[in-house]
Amino acid sequence: MTSASSLPRVGFIGLGIMGQSMAGHLLAQGHPLTVYNRSREKAAGLIGRGARWADTPGAVAAQSDVVITMLGYPSDVEQVWLGADGVVANARQALLIDMTTSSPALAQRLAAEAAKAGHMALDAPVSGGDVGAREAKLSIMVGGNAAAFATALPVLQRMGTNIVHMGEAGAGQHTKMSNQIVIASTIMGVCEGLAYARAAGLDETVLLQAIGGGAAGGFQLNVLGPRIVKGDFAPGFFIEHFLKDLGIALTEADRMQLDLPGARLARQLYTELAGGGKGRLGTQALFQHYMTGA
Amino acid sequence: MTSASSLPRVGFIGLGIMGQSMAGHLLAQGHPLTVYNRSREKAAGLIGRGARWADTPGAVAAQSDVVITMLGYPSDVEQVWLGADGVVANARQALLIDMTTSSPALAQRLAAEAAKAGHMALDAPVSGGDVGAREAKLSIMVGGNAAAFATALPVLQRMGTNIVHMGEAGAGQHTKMSNQIVIASTIMGVCEGLAYARAAGLDETVLLQAIGGGAAGGFQLNVLGPRIVKGDFAPGFFIEHFLKDLGIALTEADRMQLDLPGARLARQLYTELAGGGKGRLGTQALFQHYMTGA
Repeated sequence: MTSASSLPRVGFIGLGIMGQSMAGHLLAQGHPLTVYNRSREKAAGLIGRGARWADTPGAVAAQSDVVITMLGYPSDVEQVWLGADGVVANARQALLIDMTTSSPALAQRLAAEAAKAGHMALDAPVSGGDVGAREAKLSIMVGGNAAAFATALPVLQRMGTNIVHMGEAGAGQHTKMSNQIVIASTIMGVCEGLAYARAAGLDETVLLQAIGGGAAGGFQLNVLGPRIVKGDFAPGFFIEHFLKDLGIALTEADRMQLDLPGARLARQLYTELAGGGKGRLGTQALFQHYMTGA
Repeated sequence: MTSASSLPRVGFIGLGIMGQSMAGHLLAQGHPLTVYNRSREKAAGLIGRGARWADTPGAVAAQSDVVITMLGYPSDVEQVWLGADGVVANARQALLIDMTTSSPALAQRLAAEAAKAGHMALDAPVSGGDVGAREAKLSIMVGGNAAAFATALPVLQRMGTNIVHMGEAGAGQHTKMSNQIVIASTIMGVCEGLAYARAAGLDETVLLQAIGGGAAGGFQLNVLGPRIVKGDFAPGFFIEHFLKDLGIALTEADRMQLDLPGARLARQLYTELAGGGKGRLGTQALFQHYMTGA
C-alpha cells in the first residue's frame, strides 16, 4: 500500500488515544513508522497495519529521521528525551518533536540538549482533542528555529490543519499555556452562568439560544453548555489533564512574576473536584461544584 | 413621513446613547412618540424629528399605549415607575416595558404593582451595545406573561432581532444576569491569557490566530482580544456599568444561596480599576490590572 522510499522515517513514542490516531495518519500516508509505548498492547493496532515496534525510546530514535513524543507529564517527557535509553542520546542527527503539552522551560532545555547532540528540536503541543487527532484537524503551536519548523511542516501537516510557528524553543508551549489560561476562567464563567440560570428556574436550553450568539458566546458556552444542560459530563478533555496544564501555566506565570487569580481560582475548584474522585470527568463537570457547593 | 393612525403611541423614558437610538427606530417606523429624560437636551434630536416632549414620566405615560424605560440603576427604575409622578400611577391601561438592565427582584415587584393598577408589564433588558441599538439588532430577553409579550413583540421588533420570551416577570433580568456572569470570568480569562502571552514575549497577533478558532475562542477573545493587543481600551461597554450589573447578579445569587467565586473575583478586580479612575474605560481594560499588578 505504501512506497516508503522518499518519505522520512518517523518514530512515534506515546500511543494514548491521541497518539494512536496521529501515528496512524503518518503510517497511512506512507511514512515508515517505528513505535514505542510504555504498555505495548496499545501498539497492536499500528503494528497490525505495518508499524515496527522498538523496545526503548532510544531504539525508536536510532532508526528514525523524525521522532515525535506524545506523552503525559513533563517528567515523562524529560525521561524519554534525556534518559540513558532516551531519544537525544540515541538519535542520529534527527528532528525531535515533543507534541505533549508540557513545560516551556523544559522545552527550552530539551532544545539546548538536542542542539548539543546535533539534532533539531521543536515543541509542538496541540489542541483539538481526540476528535481533532482522529480527523487530522489538530491545531499545532510550534516553538523552535525556522529551519526545524520548515523540516517538520510536511510531517505536521499529516496531523493538523492550523499549524502556527510561534517563535523560538518554548513558544509553542507558551502558546498552549495562554490557551489553557483563557479556557480556565471561561469554563468557570460558563458554569457559573448556567448555575445561576438553574437556580433562577430559567429554561436552560432557551437561555443558551438567547445568549449564545452574543458577547457571552464562544466554544465553551456553545459546545460545552448544551452538555452541561443535558447532564453529560463525559470527558472531551479530562479534568486531571487540565489540572496538569494549569499547574504548568501557573508555575511559569510565577516564574515571570505574573499573578493570574482567575486561573488560580479555577485550579483550586478543579483540584477539589479531582480530590472528590471526579478527575476523569470532562472539564464541564466544574458545573457540579456549583450544584454541591450551594 | 408617518401615518400615526394605527400604530400604538409609545412613550420613551431614558435617552442615553442606546435609548436615543432605540426611540429613533420607533419614531422612524411611525409610532407617535413622547419622550422624557432627566436632562432635556438629549431629547433635542428626537424632538426635531417629530417626537413630543413631556415634563414628567407620568405625563409620558398618560399619553402612551406602550411605555418603555431605558435607565441607569435599579433605583432610577424604581423612582420612574413607582414615584408619585411616575409611570404606574399615571398610565391608562398601558403596556409598561423596562429595558434597563436591572434587578430581577425589582422586576417582579414592578410587575405586581403594574398589575394592581391595571397595566401589563415586562422586563426586557438587551444586549448588543450601542452598535446593536443603532442598527436595531439588539438581543432582547423578556420576562412577563405571554399576553404582554405578544402585545410587545411588534414594538420590540423595531429595536432588536433576537427577541426571546424567557418566562414570567424577572426572567428577562435573570437571563441578562446569567449572560453577565458568563462574561465576567470569560473576559478575566482573556486578559490573563494575553497577559501571560505578553510576559512570555509571544507575538500576540499571531497568538490570536493560533488560538482564536479553537476551544478558547469566542466573542470576548475574538472581538476584544485584538483591541487589547492594540492597546485600545475605549468603551464598548463601560466598566462602571458592568460593575452595576455584577452587583445585581451577585446580590441575586446571594439571595438564592449560590456562591459564584469567579464573578466575585472579577467584580473585585473591576472595583479596584474603577477606584483607580478607570470606570469609564471598556471592560477589556481589565488587562491593565495584570500589567500594573505584576
